[in-house]
Amino acid sequence: MLILVTNDDGVHAPGIRALSQSLKEMGRVVIAAPDRERSAASHSLTLYHPLRIGTVSKDIYAIDGTPTDCIHLAIHVILKGEKPDLLVSGINRGANLGQNITYSGTVWAALEGNLMGIPSFAVSLVEYKNHDYRPAAEFSVKVARWIGEYGLPKDTVLNVNVPDDPEQDLDRYLITHQGWQRFNESVIEKEDPRGKSYFWIGGEQMPPEGGIDTDVGAVADGYISVTPLHADMTNYQALEAIRSWNREK
Amino acid sequence: MLILVTNDDGVHAPGIRALSQSLKEMGRVVIAAPDRERSAASHSLTLYHPLRIGTVSKDIYAIDGTPTDCIHLAIHVILKGEKPDLLVSGINRGANLGQNITYSGTVWAALEGNLMGIPSFAVSLVEYKNHDYRPAAEFSVKVARWIGEYGLPKDTVLNVNVPDDPEQDLDRYLITHQGWQRFNESVIEKEDPRGKSYFWIGGEQMPPEGGIDTDVGAVADGYISVTPLHADMTNYQALEAIRSWNREK
Repeated sequence: MLILVTNDDGVHAPGIRALSQSLKEMGRVVIAAPDRERSAASHSLTLYHPLRIGTVSKDIYAIDGTPTDCIHLAIHVILKGEKPDLLVSGINRGANLGQNITYSGTVWAALEGNLMGIPSFAVSLVEYKNHDYRPAAEFSVKVARWIGEYGLPKDTVLNVNVPDDPEQDLDRYLITHQGWQRFNESVIEKEDPRGKSYFWIGGEQMPPEGGIDTDVGAVADGYISVTPLHADMTNYQALEAIRSWNREK
Repeated sequence: MLILVTNDDGVHAPGIRALSQSLKEMGRVVIAAPDRERSAASHSLTLYHPLRIGTVSKDIYAIDGTPTDCIHLAIHVILKGEKPDLLVSGINRGANLGQNITYSGTVWAALEGNLMGIPSFAVSLVEYKNHDYRPAAEFSVKVARWIGEYGLPKDTVLNVNVPDDPEQDLDRYLITHQGWQRFNESVIEKEDPRGKSYFWIGGEQMPPEGGIDTDVGAVADGYISVTPLHADMTNYQALEAIRSWNREK
């Protein structure tokens, strides 16, 4: 079994190492990840400058692009066109819940894998206080085995969020839908040594909203959250309302 | 009426100028767009370096960030916290259809507007042979007036694609859902003057798939396509299948 692993925290992040270590019991693990942190890269592709592949050690590659770039270079260059049997993206340092997943390079790398026809999931560590990636790494092996046994539904990736509790019960998980969590908008102004303004996009997390059937509600209650995602962004419930516009004219 | 306009082709692109020109009949138009082309920026945010705002002329600003960055700086710095009544992103040089919208900085800028509570839509010119932005610019005014009259459904933005036909009938539009269109994966290898390899992500568009009820099918038949989108990426249809996993054990 060939497993491709990526993330958006960079190839040297502890989460990707913990994940790869535990997946090794299932087959050959190839890591292709950004050479530095690329959080909030979303689904972006690098089209205006070329990319380089650095070899860190056997089966570990560092790429100077986004997580989605990494998937392309891994499959078409590093693996010479061979599609892996599984793609796992993570373990992300911090939760990927609610609307925040739309910015996540980790989640979109899994969705890119799905668009390429590879069974894929993303995994993140909620909170990040204890810095203990072991429960998330162990749960990832469980998810990988389920995918092998049951198969993912068509056009579906899983977004897994594991509480940062060294004693986390791995049978305590819920299948959820996306809830509401977003950062608090703010822009911070500073002045450079020449008196010119520059700006930082800031933002703390806002309090999440959503019941136990949502990703944010499940993790707030100490559950592991597993959310099926897809790349169809149509709001089907809005179709009829918009079709009625202008009809009476 | 205050209208914020952005894009991902950059502040100097002809599409953003044509759009702003036609929206001026409705109110004050403020342009805040990337200082250069930022296609395929998706929903990415710049978190690891600060941003600058350049003034091109009155109410036209160039920002060295992504389209989503531009929305934040426009509202919190340029407009000093005042929320615009409408956000329009475009007119994109080329279609935004099928899965390709997930990479689009233009489409995600509109979704960011929606997450901030601003009525928002994205507009793109399909094909780009005649380079005639007028029908798309005129249709944008129509959409802006509909939004003013009927209001957008909750958590919804519109993704508008207008055929590049100078004679396009503006009453020939369909409300659609997202179809299938994706680029053909390829990575091109080249060698630098020092004999080291570098790589370009390439890719032509693959033939689209989808009937007249989809974005790709509608534009293929010469219709303007209007698709309601949202930032909820849950695959609701997959929830039950995944809940059944492991249940029999």
